Amino acid sequence: VSASATAAPFVHRHRVRFDEVDAAGIVYFARFFTWCHDAMEAMLAPLDGGYTALVTARRLGLPAVHVEADYRAPLRFGDEVLVEASVERLGKSSVALRFDLVRSPGREPVAVLKHVVSLVDLGVLRARPLPDDVRAVFERHLRAGG
Amino acid sequence: VSASATAAPFVHRHRVRFDEVDAAGIVYFARFFTWCHDAMEAMLAPLDGGYTALVTARRLGLPAVHVEADYRAPLRFGDEVLVEASVERLGKSSVALRFDLVRSPGREPVAVLKHVVSLVDLGVLRARPLPDDVRAVFERHLRAGG
Amino acid sequence: VSASATAAPFVHRHRVRFDEVDAAGIVYFARFFTWCHDAMEAMLAPLDGGYTALVTARRLGLPAVHVEADYRAPLRFGDEVLVEASVERLGKSSVALRFDLVRSPGREPVAVLKHVVSLVDLGVLRARPLPDDVRAVFERHLRAGG
Amino acid sequence: VSASATAAPFVHRHRVRFDEVDAAGIVYFARFFTWCHDAMEAMLAPLDGGYTALVTARRLGLPAVHVEADYRAPLRFGDEVLVEASVERLGKSSVALRFDLVRSPGREPVAVLKHVVSLVDLGVLRARPLPDDVRAVFERHLRAGG
Repeated sequence: VSASATAAPFVHRHRVRFDEVDAAGIVYFARFFTWCHDAMEAMLAPLDGGYTALVTARRLGLPAVHVEADYRAPLRFGDEVLVEASVERLGKSSVALRFDLVRSPGREPVAVLKHVVSLVDLGVLRARPLPDDVRAVFERHLRAGG
Repeated sequence: VSASATAAPFVHRHRVRFDEVDAAGIVYFARFFTWCHDAMEAMLAPLDGGYTALVTARRLGLPAVHVEADYRAPLRFGDEVLVEASVERLGKSSVALRFDLVRSPGREPVAVLKHVVSLVDLGVLRARPLPDDVRAVFERHLRAGG
Repeated sequence: VSASATAAPFVHRHRVRFDEVDAAGIVYFARFFTWCHDAMEAMLAPLDGGYTALVTARRLGLPAVHVEADYRAPLRFGDEVLVEASVERLGKSSVALRFDLVRSPGREPVAVLKHVVSLVDLGVLRARPLPDDVRAVFERHLRAGG
Repeated sequence: VSASATAAPFVHRHRVRFDEVDAAGIVYFARFFTWCHDAMEAMLAPLDGGYTALVTARRLGLPAVHVEADYRAPLRFGDEVLVEASVERLGKSSVALRFDLVRSPGREPVAVLKHVVSLVDLGVLRARPLPDDVRAVFERHLRAGG
């Protein structure tokens, strides 16, 4: 059994805040992307100094190249959601992340998001190979075949 | 010459605000979706009472079913961007919108976003056929072959 | 010793997110109010169903009548802050909340915010006396003399 | 008649967006501060390069030292509001701005906000005297006696 076959998603929990709904009374569609970014930040906590130090000390970042979302069920104020983050593909400098959002409790599917991010030097905004420590964190959550 | 062949995109102008950038100093990726939603709202101004009355008086809405974004160039505080909105496909209750974001002046490509939205009764959050007046506004911006 | 003399503040912890800074590289001033609202929501968790049920089931809310903030030290991405919430004054339908924000670790003073909120019937947006259960939660965090 | 006696407020117009309301269905209280910051940015457009160049080229900024808001009437999705910005006091490095928010049309009072900001060198975040060009823009909107 390979490491990737046993890789577990990284789970980030979020409770819908008072100001995250829109005039239709449900969570505004763009907020989901923020929660997934939060999940990626939390996933990278094992880095020395976390994502913060990567950005502020090493001046590296992971801006989005492509993102997408499929919405399955609406969320309302106070609802609790699990963001289950995994890595679908790990390239030389890019990472394809997948986020399965399910309601808690009950695991009703809420949305599936995908973020393709690229490691860049923030000074020049050009792609760089993933540093070993960053790659190692993502590998922990790499899906089988990714 | 058919109507769709001459359909012009709806153009919405946005200047990047002080609070729309992130810790990397560029516009936070999720903000682009908000600008495109703003463009859709502005596009629907010809409705009696605009998108506001559709939501608050008629209790109909256009929540996203699927959205995606491809990022081409970063934006910074104060940059001006044109959001050129058009309709790629008009279904019975769903609409596929495309947003070409270009820098102003110069028209450097910044991002391409797509929103598939579905007309719903907000009371029960179920799909309904597009009312004629809503369909008519979207038809004005339907791309050839859409 | 009266109850109020021993009242402890309610402590809410927040880590500055990637998208909470502005083009000056420090936390955007308006975000602090959101964290304090989050602290109030969390403080009200002992209510049956929390603040969520108060709003969605009982249709009562606590909109702001007056708020203010004094900023002492800037925060940056990744900084951790404690929001120490207490009640300065408890009226018939209004509550004066005070939030002392201090950096963690170290307790450097970051900001002091005050929110005067009023309990209202959300259907008509008119003030109502604080229900006993809501009053009881606030009393737990009432400062001496409040 | 002195210049200040005839100074006109700077008027910034805002239409409440779909995502600016909260779970109570009215505009979230913290959003008002963002509109006032937008008004200040727009007021500073006469600067060479506007507020943007002040921040990004000259590395000067106007962070808030103290802000406050009094809320008079709730706003809902689609409402239009005028933000009438004036200068109450102009110090050596600090500026006290006042924002009268009124509904449009009709001029129903909605809120009054005050921002005390201080000109700082963004590199070290220390107060500096207001540059002449910045002072001149604020003087145009100085209230009598300010």
